Amino acid sequence: MINEFRFIKNIQERVRQQDQSVTGIGDDCAVLSHGRLWCTDVMTEGSHFILEKADLGDLAYKSMMINISDIAAMGGYPEYALLTLGLTPQLGQRETDALIEGYRAACEEYGIDILGGDTVAAGHVFLSVSLLGSVFRHPVLRSGARSGDFIYVSGTLGDSGLGLSLVLEDCPYDLSNPEYFLERHYSPTPRVELMRYLADNARLHACIDISDGLGDDLIKLAQASGKGFFLEWDQLPLAVDEIGAVFGRDKEYFYRKALNGGEDFELILCTPEILDVQRIHDATGVRVTPIGRIRDEGYEICYHNVSQDPAAVIKKYQHFDQE
Amino acid sequence: MINEFRFIKNIQERVRQQDQSVTGIGDDCAVLSHGRLWCTDVMTEGSHFILEKADLGDLAYKSMMINISDIAAMGGYPEYALLTLGLTPQLGQRETDALIEGYRAACEEYGIDILGGDTVAAGHVFLSVSLLGSVFRHPVLRSGARSGDFIYVSGTLGDSGLGLSLVLEDCPYDLSNPEYFLERHYSPTPRVELMRYLADNARLHACIDISDGLGDDLIKLAQASGKGFFLEWDQLPLAVDEIGAVFGRDKEYFYRKALNGGEDFELILCTPEILDVQRIHDATGVRVTPIGRIRDEGYEICYHNVSQDPAAVIKKYQHFDQE
Repeated sequence: MINEFRFIKNIQERVRQQDQSVTGIGDDCAVLSHGRLWCTDVMTEGSHFILEKADLGDLAYKSMMINISDIAAMGGYPEYALLTLGLTPQLGQRETDALIEGYRAACEEYGIDILGGDTVAAGHVFLSVSLLGSVFRHPVLRSGARSGDFIYVSGTLGDSGLGLSLVLEDCPYDLSNPEYFLERHYSPTPRVELMRYLADNARLHACIDISDGLGDDLIKLAQASGKGFFLEWDQLPLAVDEIGAVFGRDKEYFYRKALNGGEDFELILCTPEILDVQRIHDATGVRVTPIGRIRDEGYEICYHNVSQDPAAVIKKYQHFDQE
Repeated sequence: MINEFRFIKNIQERVRQQDQSVTGIGDDCAVLSHGRLWCTDVMTEGSHFILEKADLGDLAYKSMMINISDIAAMGGYPEYALLTLGLTPQLGQRETDALIEGYRAACEEYGIDILGGDTVAAGHVFLSVSLLGSVFRHPVLRSGARSGDFIYVSGTLGDSGLGLSLVLEDCPYDLSNPEYFLERHYSPTPRVELMRYLADNARLHACIDISDGLGDDLIKLAQASGKGFFLEWDQLPLAVDEIGAVFGRDKEYFYRKALNGGEDFELILCTPEILDVQRIHDATGVRVTPIGRIRDEGYEICYHNVSQDPAAVIKKYQHFDQE
């Protein structure tokens, strides 16, 4: 019924922004004065997780990670959090202890102080985090891509989508290392250290994190920049070893997950430079992979040298789908 | 099952605060560097409102006001908001238009820019706001009350509680002006202008806004300050004209609402000065009323000169009541 993107656009159009010194709706974070970054992201039962199939500690941890990822995507690091937790009366001491432990672990790992929040009784569980951070050097917007930029992506893609398939028991293949994909689904790694390194060692024009799927998020970046792109689909980095022998049986299935899976929380990076991939890996432990180029207009996705219609391969991911 | 206060205490104890330059959990807002204030508050279907009995625009407006009230209670004004909205698929265009209009009106009235947010499908409606603001002069904490301080309260008390009784159809009396109480329930007025005036014209030691009820919130302020208080219950300011003739029939009912009603979002102010009530009213349109004194220890509530046991008259308001 309601289209999320349209809904936020509506608010943007109706509530005129008064202070032009801040960057508003439409990027991963708002950019405030003093290089401060601010974002919020929520996970809700039913939409983002199935309570019976998940550990509340994992969900708490993930709800912090997805916000940290938004801060990382703007070229910054997290500092302070407020939590807004909707909890159902059925939750017992064990579950709420796990919840607190999830947040404790996440905050300790990334040096975040929880400064307060709000805990309420709710009909369904929701975990909302509001996060403040600061830029390493300057904010990296999604709207800064220029024609000719190389498009890089961090890590491997489709892992979280495969993990979700395992949770939902709809993965048609026996994966070699299923634990790996479940881990990647529940414990994504925000690329803060990568962005810390690149702030000092590379020229970044644009960045966005992959929450909805590489295809959708790359289109968002291109649209925000007023550009197009060319994507080499079969260059996408996949966790081939963890997939195992079944990879060869249906490559397209796994490449499709990499393109559309969502929730990888890896970064799409646009830079005019050819990056020293090995040096970046040595310094940060993260591999970045070139997957395409920014161009003036048009979206083109190439797979085994056969050009595809992006509309046919990019699944639209919307919280509120129109019937 | 879960006690909200204990739950937040748990997080506080387990997640050690690393940055001591900020004021953390336990006040209406966190205080960041540069005098910046930060808070979040959520309203959830079932706990804070009954969707069928409310207008979504009113709820949106109120969800912004209760956050502004937290900022006002710290001696500041609001600047930026992020919205996190959980919406059910049943909501139609009319309801979501009303929602946006509620936020638009609230933001225009208080000069707030909405910088982003997150809209998700949820099983129950929830409206969460994260708000950033700045102090007028310096932050007014709830922990600063000193023995001998006069306790003042803004506006009239119990109005929102009476409005809620009208919504729930459990008010035993015919009130003279029911519309007034419904308006006060759905459209509380954060006391930003009062705090702007007092920042320049009074010495405030402590402040808290009344969300859970005067009694509960005054106890919170006293505990945070390590003090006690003496409260003259029958000095509480009530909207006697709007209550009408029934006031005389059961004064205790109305005074009880004033003490325990909750959601008035008026301010409890502690100051060593006798305030010039008339001048404050002339300047801000808000009446402040002296209702008691801070003292070293012990809570005492006096009603018609008969001293009462606070535990007997102060209703504990908890989102998660223990069975």
